[in-house]
Amino acid sequence: MAQMLAFGPIAFHAIVVMRDRGILEALAKNRRKNGLAIETISEECGLSHYATRVLLEAGLGLKLVWRRDGLYHLTKLGYFILTDEMTRINFDFTRDVCYDAATQLDAALSTGKPAGLKTLGPWDTVYQGLSAMPEPAMSSWHNFDHFYSDQAFPVMVEKLAAENPSSLLDIGCNTGKWAYTCLQRLPDLRIGLVDLEPQLERAIAHLTPLEATTPPKCYPLDMLDPMARLPDGYDIIWMSQFLDCFSEQEIIAILCKVKEGLKPGAKVWILELFWDRQRFEAAALSLQQTSLYFTCVANGNSQMYDSEVFFDLIRASGLTISSVTDNVGQYHTLIECTASTSL
Amino acid sequence: MAQMLAFGPIAFHAIVVMRDRGILEALAKNRRKNGLAIETISEECGLSHYATRVLLEAGLGLKLVWRRDGLYHLTKLGYFILTDEMTRINFDFTRDVCYDAATQLDAALSTGKPAGLKTLGPWDTVYQGLSAMPEPAMSSWHNFDHFYSDQAFPVMVEKLAAENPSSLLDIGCNTGKWAYTCLQRLPDLRIGLVDLEPQLERAIAHLTPLEATTPPKCYPLDMLDPMARLPDGYDIIWMSQFLDCFSEQEIIAILCKVKEGLKPGAKVWILELFWDRQRFEAAALSLQQTSLYFTCVANGNSQMYDSEVFFDLIRASGLTISSVTDNVGQYHTLIECTASTSL
Repeated sequence: MAQMLAFGPIAFHAIVVMRDRGILEALAKNRRKNGLAIETISEECGLSHYATRVLLEAGLGLKLVWRRDGLYHLTKLGYFILTDEMTRINFDFTRDVCYDAATQLDAALSTGKPAGLKTLGPWDTVYQGLSAMPEPAMSSWHNFDHFYSDQAFPVMVEKLAAENPSSLLDIGCNTGKWAYTCLQRLPDLRIGLVDLEPQLERAIAHLTPLEATTPPKCYPLDMLDPMARLPDGYDIIWMSQFLDCFSEQEIIAILCKVKEGLKPGAKVWILELFWDRQRFEAAALSLQQTSLYFTCVANGNSQMYDSEVFFDLIRASGLTISSVTDNVGQYHTLIECTASTSL
Repeated sequence: MAQMLAFGPIAFHAIVVMRDRGILEALAKNRRKNGLAIETISEECGLSHYATRVLLEAGLGLKLVWRRDGLYHLTKLGYFILTDEMTRINFDFTRDVCYDAATQLDAALSTGKPAGLKTLGPWDTVYQGLSAMPEPAMSSWHNFDHFYSDQAFPVMVEKLAAENPSSLLDIGCNTGKWAYTCLQRLPDLRIGLVDLEPQLERAIAHLTPLEATTPPKCYPLDMLDPMARLPDGYDIIWMSQFLDCFSEQEIIAILCKVKEGLKPGAKVWILELFWDRQRFEAAALSLQQTSLYFTCVANGNSQMYDSEVFFDLIRASGLTISSVTDNVGQYHTLIECTASTSL
């Protein structure tokens, strides 16, 4: 395992090239058959004999392929790397968003700044660049972000329908995907959108085709601005994959703002991914490594949290956790909070 | 494993930072004791609480560390990453020589050129830059190259002493490390050195302090030059970790040159690393991934060979394989060849 990790970055590229140049595909078409010679794969993929051989041999050690009598076969691991959407999205995210930036991990950890972000653009945080990032980073970022929330939103919108609120404030609405899901299912819902200006413009463009009874209302706010005040009067305050973008102190400050504007009986719904509340080790691993994306690329001081750390921040803000639901969709946890009357 | 590979490059940097910033060391000092809190490690390593936490949590998924009651412990894997010299050298080689270049793997495979080499310097092949490469790439390259040959040289020099030749031609002498080992043990040996000019200068500087009966003779030659002719009259023609730097066609051409200059009774000793002749899977894996360094960085058309492929090249040159000895030192294979009289 030590050597696997030591050569991890080289292996990473070998795998991506085998995937994108059709080597895994050629082998997949031949699954449970006789195996393929280097020459056959070379012709099918338009790569030289040498190129095909070094890739296949790298794949042997990584156990993406196996060989008998000079003929190559795909392993289950190789098959998943080819066909599993989550795996594809994670590889693309690492390659297009994180790979170059990751060399700046030490600098990012030392300074508390996302020292690797300069590989993508001239912003202080990635959030300022989300609507302006170059391709393929732009697509890979959003595919990564959406893939996970897409699994939770259908479940959550039904839960919301059962709750039957008249209004919802979506803090950190980003592309407006959640608001879109809500308005499709609950066209009478009155929605407020909070985010930085460029994201709001994009979200509204996304939502305009929908026929909502009340058009969504935009609140361009930087939640880190001490002077920023949230609108009040909403039944549900919604934050999905939002608070993980902030440091501990910032999360407390944001939750204090949320608490201030909370009307009696209103609920705060926080949808998050916690590495310590995953059913599968691979999911915990993925979230733990994703934390380093936040360090290097996003803003230098946030992460995918340990839920114990996160719950302490909620308590510190004065909000009361009324329920915790794990495995929403597959990987998310819903935390429902209310204003504590006892504090 | 798919997710481990997908986040491999990010994990790689987390590991290196944990090693170089003293986190693994702090945990190693506490081995078989009570474990350490994030706060303790943070203070000891001069990293923020946040920085320490994201690294340790990344280490959990990678199984470098484990945690109980909020206290962190080092695993056996973490201990080896800290203390095993080979592992350290492999990590440094990947980081300093290969990491940036590896993004050019697809380009290198398509063109047959070392497309990633431009990240280190303006050379056509890495061999032109070996004496001029910037640090830390320079040290990491040589540490990597020497670490493996250093294990084989003491065994080989005894084998050479038993053979008692009067002369040896070292083709691809590089820094002169093998010649140095020979002359220390066998001061009467007449040595010829073949390499590119800059490497020869460095080798001679390295050998000058030694009191050899006959000073080593230099032959500045590019073995790929069709007009280049090797000197004749040497008893042993020595090529260590040299032929893996060439393509199949080039290896045949070089071996043909060697055969031409071979005096009656002379022997060709080829010391190489073959991934299919390793005792340990980790060694095979390492060699298979190292092939991609040859693709991206070295010259775009060479690799750590499958011995079956390599033996065919020797036969194609008209040389006869008289013996093959595996596990020389730990990882090398010695191939002894002679001029075939029957061909």
